[in-house]
Amino acid sequence: MTRTVVESKTKTAVLGFDEPFCVIGERINPTGRKKLAAELEAGDFSTVEKDALAQVAAGANILDINAGVVYNSNPNPNETEPPLMTKIIELVQGLVDVPLCIDSSVPEALEAGLAAAQGRPLLNSVTGEEERLELVLPLVKKYNVPVVAISNDDTGISEDPDVRFAVAKKIVERAADFGIPAHDIVVDPLVMPIGAMATAGHQVFTLVRRLREELGVNTTCGASNISFGLPNRHGINNAFLPMAMGAGMTSAIMNPVALPVTQKAIAEKKEQVTAAGIILPEGMDDETFVTLFGLGSTKPRAGKEMEAIRAANLLTNNDPHGGAWIAANKAPAKAGEEGRGRGGRTGGRRRRA
Amino acid sequence: MTRTVVESKTKTAVLGFDEPFCVIGERINPTGRKKLAAELEAGDFSTVEKDALAQVAAGANILDINAGVVYNSNPNPNETEPPLMTKIIELVQGLVDVPLCIDSSVPEALEAGLAAAQGRPLLNSVTGEEERLELVLPLVKKYNVPVVAISNDDTGISEDPDVRFAVAKKIVERAADFGIPAHDIVVDPLVMPIGAMATAGHQVFTLVRRLREELGVNTTCGASNISFGLPNRHGINNAFLPMAMGAGMTSAIMNPVALPVTQKAIAEKKEQVTAAGIILPEGMDDETFVTLFGLGSTKPRAGKEMEAIRAANLLTNNDPHGGAWIAANKAPAKAGEEGRGRGGRTGGRRRRA
Repeated sequence: MTRTVVESKTKTAVLGFDEPFCVIGERINPTGRKKLAAELEAGDFSTVEKDALAQVAAGANILDINAGVVYNSNPNPNETEPPLMTKIIELVQGLVDVPLCIDSSVPEALEAGLAAAQGRPLLNSVTGEEERLELVLPLVKKYNVPVVAISNDDTGISEDPDVRFAVAKKIVERAADFGIPAHDIVVDPLVMPIGAMATAGHQVFTLVRRLREELGVNTTCGASNISFGLPNRHGINNAFLPMAMGAGMTSAIMNPVALPVTQKAIAEKKEQVTAAGIILPEGMDDETFVTLFGLGSTKPRAGKEMEAIRAANLLTNNDPHGGAWIAANKAPAKAGEEGRGRGGRTGGRRRRA
Repeated sequence: MTRTVVESKTKTAVLGFDEPFCVIGERINPTGRKKLAAELEAGDFSTVEKDALAQVAAGANILDINAGVVYNSNPNPNETEPPLMTKIIELVQGLVDVPLCIDSSVPEALEAGLAAAQGRPLLNSVTGEEERLELVLPLVKKYNVPVVAISNDDTGISEDPDVRFAVAKKIVERAADFGIPAHDIVVDPLVMPIGAMATAGHQVFTLVRRLREELGVNTTCGASNISFGLPNRHGINNAFLPMAMGAGMTSAIMNPVALPVTQKAIAEKKEQVTAAGIILPEGMDDETFVTLFGLGSTKPRAGKEMEAIRAANLLTNNDPHGGAWIAANKAPAKAGEEGRGRGGRTGGRRRRA
């Protein structure tokens, strides 16, 4: 039985074939988030705090911590990332008791994170690149932590899934040389955008199955990569996650929080409403407005992906007696909301006598 | 290459491993629909007409036609079903040009349907029951049509998936004795409710894979059975369909149409809105009201399952170049609607240098 155990001070998250899917919240990451990067450079950690709380509230089992910022005042991440990693980890640990995933391409930042994290964090990541193997695997061994293994190597990311499998196998074997067991390797088989590579889904489902059956390892992926560049990414991600889970994927690095409704969307709706002759009472607050008009919420809440994951946990027999599903859906559905108990026929399909 | 060809007068639907998923609309069926049964007895076919049009508009590839009504005036379906089947098929064929699935437990109704249907309908169904095999397979041969094979037999529905596989295999072999090829057998491996049987998902995914790999047959199921008895059935069905497709399922008998918003839901919302101090203009029609207040629509429209299926077609490489996905999602999303291009980060997951 492959079980990858990740721990905070008092909480445990387990990745495993017979465990509910493990959601690794990706939001604490300044990559591609200029506003967050600027905040961090200015010593403002309010977004990190909000992201930590919102992701845990939405159901993240592990929080990824990436401090990969390039300061205007100092463009060298080798200098800036390690202390920032320490700072963010200490901050997050003070707020929420949830296992962490220490995410960096800078080895010193990984080590700073390992020193700062309580419990048994997940290290993110090693690759099949020789230099990276030699730098990261000793850290994995020294701190006795599990590690994400990304299946690219010195030749880059292969489009051939057999090559990516071979890279994963090499990492597992090299880890074994260091005395690191396969159950502490979580392989990321690399999800390509389906818009650019039509076989991207097939590739990852096949790879996950092989990784599980032939190497006995847990798996993860940057789930939203699959929908990169396409419209309604949410709709694609929502189907991809259950399919990946059906193939045997045991975790994903993803955003568990739905986008809050924007001020722009509120303004547009108010315009429509006024044009239709509706009169709003003076001083109606935004949250009341968006709730009444079905726009969602101004507050962070779990995204639809989390519902897809809960359903797939049930369908893979990792939600015993449907307890988690029923608990998440026991509140009476809102009037008119699409999707509650639909299907028209309440009975099963008619069987022949 | 397994291809099951189903035809109307001029349209073709193909079930196949390399084809988009085939949606068989289940709504034209009085089983469990007392109001529809009473209408049919009174000679009122308006609901049938609406159901035919709405299902085709929502994306059904095939329409299931079930005339299994028990009239108050005549409780013998052997007498009432055959003429009603003929009548409904003629009516539906006059409205929509889409292949039909003739669904009955009464052999005479199957034969009446075969005589009335244009093109090459799908017959629904044969089982492993001896009497049924002997009655239905000659019809399949005589009319040269494909047939749904349900994997129960004279001992009933086995909870053991190996037994259900054996029943399917027996039907395929018996069909071969009649000169019916495997590509004209569409096996329904029987979907159990996950709330009653925790392994129901695993069972069907494993069975679909075996049926495909070992018998080379296409598959179908009554998809909504999986969520029977549980809250938020829609959420479960939405994950189940992509997972089944990932396992190799090539069609489902299901409702492609979302439930229209009910008068009750409209009344409840109006109460909330009034209580919040909002003043509606006089004479606002229901459709404008439900649209503005995010309740959906009073008109039938495609259910979320259809989005899940389109996404899974893309992810199984059965939507070349994503054309169908992009076409279905090209309209600008409504302001505030959850799910358009979400995920926060627009780029892919950061890759290591």
